[in-house]
Amino acid sequence: MNIVIVVSSAKIRKDLRHYLTEKYTELAFRFHTSMKEAEKDLTKADILITYGEDLDDTLISRATNLKWIMVISAGLDRMPFAAIERQGIIVTNARGIHAIPMAEYTLSMMLQTGRQMKTLIENERQKEWDRSPVMTELHGKTIGILGIGAIGKEIARLAKAFNMTVIGLNRSGSPVENVDHVVTIKGLNSLLESSDFIVSVLPKLPETDDILRTPQFKVMKETAVLINIGRGNAINEDALLTALDEGEFKHVVLDVFKEEPLPANHPFWSHAKVTVTPHMSGISPQYQPRALDIFEHNLHVFLTSRGDYLNKIDPVKGY
Amino acid sequence: MNIVIVVSSAKIRKDLRHYLTEKYTELAFRFHTSMKEAEKDLTKADILITYGEDLDDTLISRATNLKWIMVISAGLDRMPFAAIERQGIIVTNARGIHAIPMAEYTLSMMLQTGRQMKTLIENERQKEWDRSPVMTELHGKTIGILGIGAIGKEIARLAKAFNMTVIGLNRSGSPVENVDHVVTIKGLNSLLESSDFIVSVLPKLPETDDILRTPQFKVMKETAVLINIGRGNAINEDALLTALDEGEFKHVVLDVFKEEPLPANHPFWSHAKVTVTPHMSGISPQYQPRALDIFEHNLHVFLTSRGDYLNKIDPVKGY
Repeated sequence: MNIVIVVSSAKIRKDLRHYLTEKYTELAFRFHTSMKEAEKDLTKADILITYGEDLDDTLISRATNLKWIMVISAGLDRMPFAAIERQGIIVTNARGIHAIPMAEYTLSMMLQTGRQMKTLIENERQKEWDRSPVMTELHGKTIGILGIGAIGKEIARLAKAFNMTVIGLNRSGSPVENVDHVVTIKGLNSLLESSDFIVSVLPKLPETDDILRTPQFKVMKETAVLINIGRGNAINEDALLTALDEGEFKHVVLDVFKEEPLPANHPFWSHAKVTVTPHMSGISPQYQPRALDIFEHNLHVFLTSRGDYLNKIDPVKGY
Repeated sequence: MNIVIVVSSAKIRKDLRHYLTEKYTELAFRFHTSMKEAEKDLTKADILITYGEDLDDTLISRATNLKWIMVISAGLDRMPFAAIERQGIIVTNARGIHAIPMAEYTLSMMLQTGRQMKTLIENERQKEWDRSPVMTELHGKTIGILGIGAIGKEIARLAKAFNMTVIGLNRSGSPVENVDHVVTIKGLNSLLESSDFIVSVLPKLPETDDILRTPQFKVMKETAVLINIGRGNAINEDALLTALDEGEFKHVVLDVFKEEPLPANHPFWSHAKVTVTPHMSGISPQYQPRALDIFEHNLHVFLTSRGDYLNKIDPVKGY
């Protein structure tokens, strides 16, 4: 067997690189940290490991030996799926390994906004002993989760531990564990109306573009907090600013944006009703070990033709 | 029946006052907002509702008709128990109703420190898109809980939802639901050694004075975060500052202090490894409704002599 595994954009941790080369001595690993560097090995590659942001039609057409692309992220926005499908290349991703850090980020932000953490930190700076800021509990509140996949389910599970009511939105409207009510896109506005916290975990797709815009903001509770950890395309950013200024709802926490990095002159940075974090809800020291677990499972399927790939992507649908 | 219920320090919400007077028309409620105001009614009082900070021996000796004191907080540090015991007065408190907000506070602070929220907020102020701050997950970490009563148990329950290992300390060492290992005071240092997060919910008692001092700080992990939501007496504050400056552990979150309010010139306020909040972990909009539930249960016991009082205090032990 002469399997060549090329790693392009994915800078794999040293200890994990050693682990792989020592465990799979029969496989030829080529570790690179950019596609520019990896390109020369691509024609020989049977398997490509990438973060999924460094591919295009030309590269795919040159990779004549390529059979499997392991994307060690969840975002597939920049994958040249048409070319991939033509060449019959399997694509799998690391969907699901973001669930734990992204759910912890979400709970963290719900608690932070509910407990007015920015005010408390400012009072601390001012050395002010002020017990007046109102502390909202999560207990008994309602969370609406837009997109109930692996991440949404983990958020739902934690929300239930906090005794919240959980409303979820998915394509089918089928029941999901830990979700009290599941709605389809038709129920979007009713979900928004009922929720104290709304979190979007929606992927970037044509049908999610600007899914949250003026009419949606208008039905939200005045006290609601919106959190976007999915993709920036889901929110109409101009309409969002107007809605916040008009008091349609209380606060928005944004980890993703239409343009990233968020430009330094963007009004979001300094808006009192906006919290900006730099697309990091999924970042975790446990990221690569978890991605590697999926890779190893799928590598076993690849080498033995037995079992099923985890997180296999339909190149036509793009998810 | 001519039962007089005097409310001293406890400013009961208007809607709840109306509820009480309308539901219990046969009882005479006297609502005051300070003991100074309430004093004149105290000799007639059968029942006193107080936050528990406005009583002394003299007042108790004048309250010759008093049979039951409902303390609608958990802290009993300032109760004149000797006089109370002499007169055979029943004391109940609101222990347990702090569990939800205090557990949410604790999880909030674990997430905030683990996810470097102060750094993220400062980066936001500087409009800096910086993805380098390390995001620690709670998942897989260990929490040590000093004091496994109602509050400690609720913290343990939430910690288990985050897939943490839970070590608890109580008097008996007996097993507690959602706690993986229970230790007694003899196991304090081993608990501290193993924990990534340590939260003290200990009450103020002679035996909890300075229970955390230099030897305890020295065994803690360098990466550990300590949270005190119990009482300020549990921590030797000078030793704490030295330990932080010497890097014995990473960060301390203090909601309680030896002296409250914390004086404006106290070094805690501006120490980079200290987060100060103004004794508010138990504050919640749901506080009074929950305290009232306990009061009503106990009032039923008082009026009918049937059933058991909730949260009855032993005046000799003081808890």
